[in-house]
Formats: sequence, C-alpha cells, structure tokens
Amino acid sequence: MPTPFRKITGGVCAPKGFVANAVSAGIKTPDAERLDLALIYSGSPCVAAGTFTTNRVKAAPVRVSQAHLRDRDIQAIVVNSGNANACTGVTGIQDARNSAKAIAKSLGLRQGQVAVCSTGVIGLPMPMVRITPKFPELVAGLDSKKGTNVAQAIMTSDTQHKEIAISMDLDGHKVRIGACAKGAGMICPSMATMLCFITTDINIGKACLDRAVHEAVENSFNRITIDGDMSTNDSVVVLANGESGMPRIKPKSKNYRLFRETLEFVMLEMAKSLVRDGERVTKFVTVKVNGARTYSDAKKVAEAVANSALVKASWNGNDPNWGRIIHAVGYSRAMIREEMIDIHIGSKPACLGGIEANTPMDELRKVVAKDKFEITINLHLGDAEYTVYTSDMSPEYIDFNRSEYAYWKQSRKDGLTKQ
Amino acid sequence: MPTPFRKITGGVCAPKGFVANAVSAGIKTPDAERLDLALIYSGSPCVAAGTFTTNRVKAAPVRVSQAHLRDRDIQAIVVNSGNANACTGVTGIQDARNSAKAIAKSLGLRQGQVAVCSTGVIGLPMPMVRITPKFPELVAGLDSKKGTNVAQAIMTSDTQHKEIAISMDLDGHKVRIGACAKGAGMICPSMATMLCFITTDINIGKACLDRAVHEAVENSFNRITIDGDMSTNDSVVVLANGESGMPRIKPKSKNYRLFRETLEFVMLEMAKSLVRDGERVTKFVTVKVNGARTYSDAKKVAEAVANSALVKASWNGNDPNWGRIIHAVGYSRAMIREEMIDIHIGSKPACLGGIEANTPMDELRKVVAKDKFEITINLHLGDAEYTVYTSDMSPEYIDFNRSEYAYWKQSRKDGLTKQ
Repeated sequence: MPTPFRKITGGVCAPKGFVANAVSAGIKTPDAERLDLALIYSGSPCVAAGTFTTNRVKAAPVRVSQAHLRDRDIQAIVVNSGNANACTGVTGIQDARNSAKAIAKSLGLRQGQVAVCSTGVIGLPMPMVRITPKFPELVAGLDSKKGTNVAQAIMTSDTQHKEIAISMDLDGHKVRIGACAKGAGMICPSMATMLCFITTDINIGKACLDRAVHEAVENSFNRITIDGDMSTNDSVVVLANGESGMPRIKPKSKNYRLFRETLEFVMLEMAKSLVRDGERVTKFVTVKVNGARTYSDAKKVAEAVANSALVKASWNGNDPNWGRIIHAVGYSRAMIREEMIDIHIGSKPACLGGIEANTPMDELRKVVAKDKFEITINLHLGDAEYTVYTSDMSPEYIDFNRSEYAYWKQSRKDGLTKQ
Repeated sequence: MPTPFRKITGGVCAPKGFVANAVSAGIKTPDAERLDLALIYSGSPCVAAGTFTTNRVKAAPVRVSQAHLRDRDIQAIVVNSGNANACTGVTGIQDARNSAKAIAKSLGLRQGQVAVCSTGVIGLPMPMVRITPKFPELVAGLDSKKGTNVAQAIMTSDTQHKEIAISMDLDGHKVRIGACAKGAGMICPSMATMLCFITTDINIGKACLDRAVHEAVENSFNRITIDGDMSTNDSVVVLANGESGMPRIKPKSKNYRLFRETLEFVMLEMAKSLVRDGERVTKFVTVKVNGARTYSDAKKVAEAVANSALVKASWNGNDPNWGRIIHAVGYSRAMIREEMIDIHIGSKPACLGGIEANTPMDELRKVVAKDKFEITINLHLGDAEYTVYTSDMSPEYIDFNRSEYAYWKQSRKDGLTKQ
C-alpha cells in the first residue's frame, strides 16, 4: 500500500469532533445488560455519503436513511441491534422516523440530519417501549472515548467487535479516518446484517465524497460473501466533518486520490474482518479470477465459486477439490472455454488446461488445510480480473441458523405480536 | 391426473423389447462388489431424445452422447457410476468413445447408436483397465428382468434406487413407459449427478419425441433443486422402440397429448424422488409462486427462495421463518412490491401485505415440523406462476460433502494420476 498513512488506536471517535455512546435498551434480550443502542455524533455539520442494500425488500431504517442522505447532511447516526425493523410496514417507518426525531430534538438538529440504522431479526415490530426511554441517557453520555462501545453495541452474531482508525498527512494537515462494522456477512440477514460507519475530519465536498464512497464500496464490501444471502439492512454511512482544518479536497487532486485509497483500505480491512468473523467460519479464502473476457464475466466466475455450497463444504474439510471449483466456473454463465482453464490453489497448479495438473494431492491439501489461502482461476480469454473474499461453510453454520424462534417468543411476551 | 394410465411393477425393462444388465467393475471401490456399470438395450431400432446439462463445463460422455443423439437413433445406453469422466480432456473423450465402440461391436450396432453416461467424481481419469474387461459379461447377461439392477448400479450418494413403470391404453393399444433415475440433486456435482433413463414401446417420430421430452423436462427435472449446484453430467435420455405395435403417434393428436402428460408424470415422479433422497435431506418442500408479472419473475422468486442456505437451514430447524423467505424474494431480481407480498406456510398466512399475519407462530411451526409442506408466495402483480420442489439443508449435508479425498487416493493407487 503506497499511501502514507498509519493505523492509530480507536474507531469512529478517532477523527476530531466526533463523539459517541452506547447503552443497553433490552432489544437483544430484555433481561441481560448487552449494549444494543448506539449514537455517533459530530458537533459540526458533516458532508455525508452512503450505500445501501440492493435487496428490493428494504428495512424501514434503510428507506428513511436513504431519504435523509439524499436531502440533507447528516450529523448523527442512531443504530440498534437485535431487531432489523424490516417487513414492519408503516409502523416500522414511523418507528425509524420517531427515533430520528427524538435524537434530533435532543441534539438541536433537524430530523433529516439523523441517519437511522438497524440490524437483527426480520419481521418483528421494534420494541420502542424499551428504546425511546433510553434516548436521554444515550445523548447525555456522548463522549469521545466511547467509539469502541458503538462497535460492541452493533454486534449480533459477531464474536468480536470490529473497528479501525487511520491517521495521514495531506499537505501538512493531519487528518483521520475512523470506522466500525458488524457482520457476520455482507450477505446474511436476520441475525447478521452488515453495517459500517465511517467518520473522518477531512474536508471534502458532497460529490467527491459520494464518488469516493461508491468506488471504495465496490472494491471492498461488494467483494465479500459468506453465504450468498443479501440482507435487507446492509448500510455503509460515511460522515466527513472537516474539523482537521485542512482546505477542501479538490476533485481529481492528489489529495483526493490519497483519501480515496485510504478509504478503500479502511473499508477492505472492515470487509475482511467480517469474513473472518463470519458465522462459524474456519477459513478465509481469496478467490482471484483473471484472464476473463470482461469484468462482468470475471465477477460471475468469482461469485459462483465463492457461493457454491459444495466448494465451501470441501474447503471446510481441507479438500482441495478443484473439480467442484471448475464445475462452478461452468455454471457461472460467464464465457469460458473448458480446455483453457487453469486453477491454482495457493501457488500450486491444481488444474491446467481444464484437466488435472501434476501437483501431488497432498501438497494441495496442505494449502487448503491452512486457515487462509488463495484460489486463482485463469480463464485465458482476456484481461479482465475480479477478486472475492469469502469463507468456507461449516456444518455448524447450518446448525447455528436452524432457528430464531426465541426472538418470536420474546416479541410475543412484549405484546408486539399476536403470533 | 386425468391421463388414463396405471403404475405397474418394474422400470426400464417394463416396455416391450428392452433388456438390461448391471455388473460390478470396481469403479466405486475396487474391492467391494457394488454394481457400477450398466447397459440398457432395445433389440429393435429406437427413436431417441435427450436433454443434457447446461453447465459450460461438460463431461466427456455428455459431449459424446449429445453428438450421438443428434446424428443417429440410439439403441443402447452404457452407464457407469463412481467416476464422472468430467474434466478429463482428450483421454476422457476417447474413453467415452471406446466404451460406445466396444458395446456397439458386441451388439452389432454402429458406435453412434450407443449413448454413454457417467456419474461420480469430477477430474479423475476413468479406470478403463477395470471397465473394458467387464463389457463381455455386461452384454452376455442382458435380460428383461434386470431393470432394477440398472437403477441400483447408477446410485452414488443415493440411499434408495429409483424406478417407475406405467402402462396405458392408446386407441386400444397397450403401451408402456419405464424409467430409472439417480440423484441426489438436479444440481449437485461429483458425488451425486442427476441421470434419468426412460424407455417406452410407443411408436413416435423424432420431432414429436424431442418436443415431448423438452416440455416434460422443463416441468419436472428443471423444477427441482437441492443445493443450487448444477452438475457437469446431468442427462435425461428417452428411447422409444415402437414395439407395442401401435400406429405412429401424430403431432398434436390426442395420443400425443396423453403420452406427453404421462411422460411428464413419470419425470416428475422421478424428479421428486431425487429431492426426497437428496443428500442428508429431512424435508420435501414445494415452493409455489403466483401473482408474478412474468413467468421469468415467478421462476426467479421460486429459485431464490429454494436455494437460500438460510431459508433451508430454518426449515431444517422447524422454524417458520417468513422473514428469511421475503428477504430472498427481495434479492431475486424479480419485479416485486414489498407491501403486496403474501406468504402462506401450508394453508396458513405467515405474512400478508409484506408484514406479519396474525397466525400464531406455534401453528406455523407445526406445518414446518412436518416432513412435507408447501410454501406459497403471492406477489399480487400479475398472473404468472412457477413451482419448485426442494428440500431443507442440514448440518449433515455440509459434513457429508467435506471430502472426496478417498477417491483421489484410489486413483493414485490405480496409477491413473500422479497426484
């Protein structure tokens, strides 16, 4: 990475002017004291950009936040875990708007300056009766030392909180980027919806930030897959408050490029950490496709391989099964010629020209037995490339996802559902 | 089913003039006496039709059989299990052609009158050294009582053999259709590739048979999915030898319609039996989509739901999780309006207008706890419908598919691979 930045401690509160807080509102479990309601706030106005799920079923907070990001700048993000507020109809939209409204009032903002995010089970009403009373405590406790608390509060099936902070110099001005995220899949609903919040004290215009965010997301979050299931709540929100005191970054300038590269690094670090902490995942696998005729073909091949249940099961069993890989290449709908395909496992050839290479199986097994390895697929038909970061799939993943019944029972106990 | 047919005992040898045999050639395991090489033969010339995998990586026998079916009529099918003869290059093609040639010579046919099919592990050379010497025994033992042996010989991860036979009257002529198939998925490679062989003594022309086969496959085998993985070897081959003595079926006649409906019934029975015997499957689930704007939209929705690992995991856990179903509807890329979607589990509403219905959760749980149930998704946007037959996904499925290493070790022992 040629960009002159360095990692620093902290997360979303590392950039100047950002404070945060997290409290326990009993959304995940009414009795246990688990952080599940959080707030990120910048004292000064921000330029904001975001990307949201492309699922046509969108959670209420996604709809509300998309509207807020379109119309105005954002100065605060309120987020809960334990309930996705998805498929909750008009009530869900009202609940999301009411949360934004209450937070805005406490902070002296307009409702449209507050983004709302949720992650958790789909289809259950939000327990607003437990959430609303917690807003005063949430606002009162805002603090520049509580970034990590936010990273913890947004966890659902994640086993570790995920945050990162970066410091860099732009023409003598010290600027910072901070982030937190939760998984346990780009693409994994209900228990594990992807959220990422990024703060920075950089000074940048709306159009520039939009562009940088979209490009960086395309090369990071859009390149991971754990189980091929795209969520209703996926959200990435970036706030830039300009408090570093630097002059505004110009489009196409060297500083824009440096920021854009660093932002992508931050997102990619967060994205990879989601894969590593995927539900019951044991391996981190990079699938690189090159030699494709088009970018779209390279992407189709990489995604077909990375999403194949059988390929993922073989990785879980330390089985360097290139036959399953090539069969997924074949059904990807990309232009391929079977007899041109090379597949490398790590640096070792497993398949050359569509048939088995001479590498001893035990050598290939050694690579796949590692907890991190790379599969390279060369189609030898052109110059296009694509890379996906993915995981194995374990029997424990299926077992873990067999039932969310406990959530329904709680919702019934809360009187929010007659079910 | 209005068609006037009745089930009779037997399989591919039930129609007049068909004989079969199966032997053990040590392809699955050199030591154990498991049937793994089979032959179906009609003494008189047949009209033949077939459909084959759309995977762009095609096994050698698929390529060879496609050419044979295009050029000539088929009078014999030779098939092995244990090795898919896929990704085996020029040698694989030669092996498939040599099998056809040897069988043709013994039976006094031309090479192009023999179809060749294989199912098993991808990427390993065929152990022809054990297969070729078995051909004389295979041909010598041809018998009208050995249809069931063929159904047994083509099994890989199947736990039961699958066959069916039908008798019906067409204008006073008694005709028969027989079939055998193996799974354990339409769409499941390596260990479990789909094959189906259908014989009949009906008298029908090539164009008519082609049309009937393609229509019936579209409404049967193309509607099942176990794991979303499309194989390199999927093949359905239908042989009609006309030995019933009936006059030739005319296109668009009543007899054509009756035959076509019965053929579809036979294929659908075989297809459903593949799902029921899917790898480590515990439930048979029918996913019906209606009210879609187009047939293609209905299909996209049904397939997205039926292939979602999370939806399938919830079924395995008896969890009536309609939230996961609607999220799969949302990412299917079909035209939908979230607030119009109804989802029924069995006959009970789980989601109405995109939000939870009032059915008590425990009632929905009772439906999903059964080993057979139906999910109905109404998009309320049009008249198009589509139905998919599918299964749950169990932790045991992933566990079962973790390694095929034993096959590689055997291949190395055979001196067929240096790996």
